[in-house]
Amino acid sequence: MSFRATILTLFPEMFPGPLGHSLAGRALGDAIWSLDCVNIRDFGQGRHRAVDDTPFGGGAGMVMRPDVLDAAIASVADDRPLIALTPRGKPLTQARVKSLAASPGVILLCGRYEGFDQRVLDVRNAEEISIGDYVLAGGEIASLALLDATIRLLPGVMGAAESAEDESFSAPLLEYPHYTRPADWNGHAVPDILLSGNHQSIAAWRRAGAETITKTRRPDLWAHHIASQPARP
Amino acid sequence: MSFRATILTLFPEMFPGPLGHSLAGRALGDAIWSLDCVNIRDFGQGRHRAVDDTPFGGGAGMVMRPDVLDAAIASVADDRPLIALTPRGKPLTQARVKSLAASPGVILLCGRYEGFDQRVLDVRNAEEISIGDYVLAGGEIASLALLDATIRLLPGVMGAAESAEDESFSAPLLEYPHYTRPADWNGHAVPDILLSGNHQSIAAWRRAGAETITKTRRPDLWAHHIASQPARP
Repeated sequence: MSFRATILTLFPEMFPGPLGHSLAGRALGDAIWSLDCVNIRDFGQGRHRAVDDTPFGGGAGMVMRPDVLDAAIASVADDRPLIALTPRGKPLTQARVKSLAASPGVILLCGRYEGFDQRVLDVRNAEEISIGDYVLAGGEIASLALLDATIRLLPGVMGAAESAEDESFSAPLLEYPHYTRPADWNGHAVPDILLSGNHQSIAAWRRAGAETITKTRRPDLWAHHIASQPARP
Repeated sequence: MSFRATILTLFPEMFPGPLGHSLAGRALGDAIWSLDCVNIRDFGQGRHRAVDDTPFGGGAGMVMRPDVLDAAIASVADDRPLIALTPRGKPLTQARVKSLAASPGVILLCGRYEGFDQRVLDVRNAEEISIGDYVLAGGEIASLALLDATIRLLPGVMGAAESAEDESFSAPLLEYPHYTRPADWNGHAVPDILLSGNHQSIAAWRRAGAETITKTRRPDLWAHHIASQPARP
């Protein structure tokens, strides 16, 4: 069963975009996943196919109309999760990516302007997801990120070169530093221990490196990691 | 002075991709920003133009070679910040996006496979940035997200419809819910207060809505917000 992605957007020409190349592009060609785009404009109102209007209560920007969005959603809705990409959403996590990769697919709603009328999100029980604490021009690139993360986990997509082992967020810590040839690069040598052949020492060194970088860069993840350790007797 | 983005990637065909449309695409056409791609493969080793090798110390996946990456970086390096997109990086924030939008541009290094040899990041003093706590197939879509967020803040890019006022992460709270026409949509009415014309009440209602959604969805942001409030006398 192929993973089915349906995108509701005002910019269908943005897809598949980068997902048409490399890993995701090959997987699309191999029918491991499929992509449909629905142009929200096709459900717009009146001669100008309006999709947005000014916000009730005043304020800057335009808001996407609930009737227009609902008609677009109705044209594709099925048992797949409906996800609205918005900076107000819950942060996307690797755990959610994994669960999406195990689902039959997703319907992704891409906003533009100030965002969606809240009623359609409530009525349609949309899951609001944010890909990070910054503001994009719309949900399209957020959808690409969510799909890229998901597609690489579908069976048959990754080869040995792209192994999902030991990577940041699969484990609870950030990943240890990597080194490859040349062993001496312009006088910068790789750490001796990596050439020692002692697998136990190498594993301990990597573990310590992962802990150090997590503590330094992500005190939030480190605190979470410590809290999740079993208590010592 | 135009904002200059240079991307170092194995997949230059992914660019400008979605950034060639809509807001960013118009701004590219208007020369508000410019884009160059450098194919890292052009700096590969030997007949096969190898860019990666197995990791010292063992383990799955392939690591991008420091000599190859350094030659690619040297071909474009100037006083712009060099940013490597990686899940090990510091999380991208709207504050960093704003500072990038005020800079002359960026050089973005996109990884594939298991990642970069650490030495080249250290020697080149690369800023490691993550766009979120999930794993992408490479740095390309992360670069698109970083550029999209940055470009919309460049002078002359956003019109009134895309106003940057009051949005999530410009303020310390998530944004309040939005409503537009129709006022009654299939029996779902907009909150009465938004039709009251009382601007002070509307502002208070929106503030309460932003606080509620932030507390519920992002206890981390809420804690940060509370901690940053001036103490009451």
